[in-house]
Amino acid sequence: MNSRFLHFKLIAASLCLLCACSPETKDDPIIENPIPAYGIVIHGGAGTIMKKKMTPEKEEAYSQMLDSALSAGYLILENGGSSLDAVQSAIEILEDSPLFNAGKGAVFNHEGRHEMDASIMNGKDRNAGAVAGVSTIRNPIQAARLVMEQSEHVMLSGAGAEIFSLAHGIATEDSSYFSTEGRRKSLDKALEREKAEDLSENRGQWIDSKFGTVGACALDKHGNLAAGTSTGGMTNKKYGRIGDSPIIGAGTYAYDSTCAISCTGWGEYYIRTVAAKSVSDQMEYGDIELGEAMEHTLYQDIEKLGGDGGIIGIDRLGNVAWRFNTPGMYRASITSATEKCIHFYEDLVE
Amino acid sequence: MNSRFLHFKLIAASLCLLCACSPETKDDPIIENPIPAYGIVIHGGAGTIMKKKMTPEKEEAYSQMLDSALSAGYLILENGGSSLDAVQSAIEILEDSPLFNAGKGAVFNHEGRHEMDASIMNGKDRNAGAVAGVSTIRNPIQAARLVMEQSEHVMLSGAGAEIFSLAHGIATEDSSYFSTEGRRKSLDKALEREKAEDLSENRGQWIDSKFGTVGACALDKHGNLAAGTSTGGMTNKKYGRIGDSPIIGAGTYAYDSTCAISCTGWGEYYIRTVAAKSVSDQMEYGDIELGEAMEHTLYQDIEKLGGDGGIIGIDRLGNVAWRFNTPGMYRASITSATEKCIHFYEDLVE
Repeated sequence: MNSRFLHFKLIAASLCLLCACSPETKDDPIIENPIPAYGIVIHGGAGTIMKKKMTPEKEEAYSQMLDSALSAGYLILENGGSSLDAVQSAIEILEDSPLFNAGKGAVFNHEGRHEMDASIMNGKDRNAGAVAGVSTIRNPIQAARLVMEQSEHVMLSGAGAEIFSLAHGIATEDSSYFSTEGRRKSLDKALEREKAEDLSENRGQWIDSKFGTVGACALDKHGNLAAGTSTGGMTNKKYGRIGDSPIIGAGTYAYDSTCAISCTGWGEYYIRTVAAKSVSDQMEYGDIELGEAMEHTLYQDIEKLGGDGGIIGIDRLGNVAWRFNTPGMYRASITSATEKCIHFYEDLVE
Repeated sequence: MNSRFLHFKLIAASLCLLCACSPETKDDPIIENPIPAYGIVIHGGAGTIMKKKMTPEKEEAYSQMLDSALSAGYLILENGGSSLDAVQSAIEILEDSPLFNAGKGAVFNHEGRHEMDASIMNGKDRNAGAVAGVSTIRNPIQAARLVMEQSEHVMLSGAGAEIFSLAHGIATEDSSYFSTEGRRKSLDKALEREKAEDLSENRGQWIDSKFGTVGACALDKHGNLAAGTSTGGMTNKKYGRIGDSPIIGAGTYAYDSTCAISCTGWGEYYIRTVAAKSVSDQMEYGDIELGEAMEHTLYQDIEKLGGDGGIIGIDRLGNVAWRFNTPGMYRASITSATEKCIHFYEDLVE
């Protein structure tokens, strides 16, 4: 893949987005104070999402699910609710869908179990919560929020994170709830490949699983930003691997002075570049705007190191941006100043 | 504590450091190319370290151990070795000492076990490795380096991290090796307090344990930076809590274009502010120098949110800086351009 060409394609795609999202009609009675704008942007993972591999039915299913999550989050914002609630609500809907690699539909690890990660951050006070490697919690994003609000800690892991969450009454499910036929096949394929070629930790596993992490970023009417991310991680992952999704600064960041960010992609590269915080810091210290900051992090940092994936975000003024260097990214946005957009591919070139 | 006053005191203390560290004599035969400078800075944790609470014997023991770690790292640099080796070597010596809360001497968690975290990062390629919640590995910093060099992952946790490390032949120890009488008493005290006052997740636990995390940052003759951090975490910690030490961007960061950073303190605040990356980003995007960047992160971010601790670092030109907003921080540095310094307190005011 020619990354330079791709870079231009993606800029073109985002310009398209700006054109497509014309301002809402002004007769919407709920929008009493349209300035600052409020809104929400979500993703369902970045990866080899291509039109030629899709069926109309599959497109419809993804589109409906993204729409449903986006609308649930936006309704909260319209009604004056918090960006935190909007983010959590949108992510819960994506976690509940088997289409995405989070909650129901999470990939299998090497032992055939599910180890899910999630994080959430409040841009107002930069409080944050995260869980890593939970196996029974129906909605890991709820556990992340519990950690943020009910503990003095930011990150809890494994059995301890489950004990904490259970003590606070969180809903759990048996392993079978999270399991889907497709994810099982991905694990079987990865194990076969591993056996045949000893690709125990190679990119092969990653290709199958990287599209599916879910995330949301929102700005509410009170000017507060929030972001969250939830994932089942990598198919066939071993050794208690922790990716970027539960790491504040890597997969998730929100700060009212700058932006709210959620990432999806090859997690190790997002950890090494501390991708989400890097976008926020460029805005804070370099006076760089959201989309340009994402481009720097994705093309100058992540891509040059060999990684790929996508980034979504919304800034403190309600400007939405996304960038990705994969063939596609499930993504959708709506703000009080722009129409609803739902996209899968690099629109201009497919 | 008047933080504004403290701020000035600490700036004064760092100026003192600059004065105290006059250039080395030029007749040292090992320094063939003194430009760029090379050097190493280490810490043994920040906290309520005050002269009035110390004995001459204790001072001597800490001083000797810091000197020993610093000298081991610096010898590697003088001989043309890598900053990574220097960082690892210095941290191993601190891990092997029961004086610090890392390796031997690690604090006890709520269940009376040791759960240690470590991370290391190479500024050259921004590769990184980390382990969280390991219980049997003699030198967790070695495990972090193994993850960096022998896996495609950055962060492994719990039993999985141990299985990976054991498969690569790392040295392990029984739980008793890590245990010390003093740390056991700290746990007993924390448990008593918890029982009496139900301070299950309060600051009380933290006060006892925050001085002890160890870290090192180095610049080698080849212009490569590296940083590492190792800790036993918080006394009486529960629920698989992960602090900032194993999180790339929070407790540790290294990037050849900017600086190498290791943090110590109330980990949750370092995670929320992504402290180490924040210092690097201020240098990269804001053209701010190392010490000033640390001040912003510590006083404008961490302290304003309610956190405390310290930060050490070395920049790409070999300039060393440290800042802390606690009464003291065990710290030491030596570079090819400055003399060896070993400090515990805010020198100018005690």
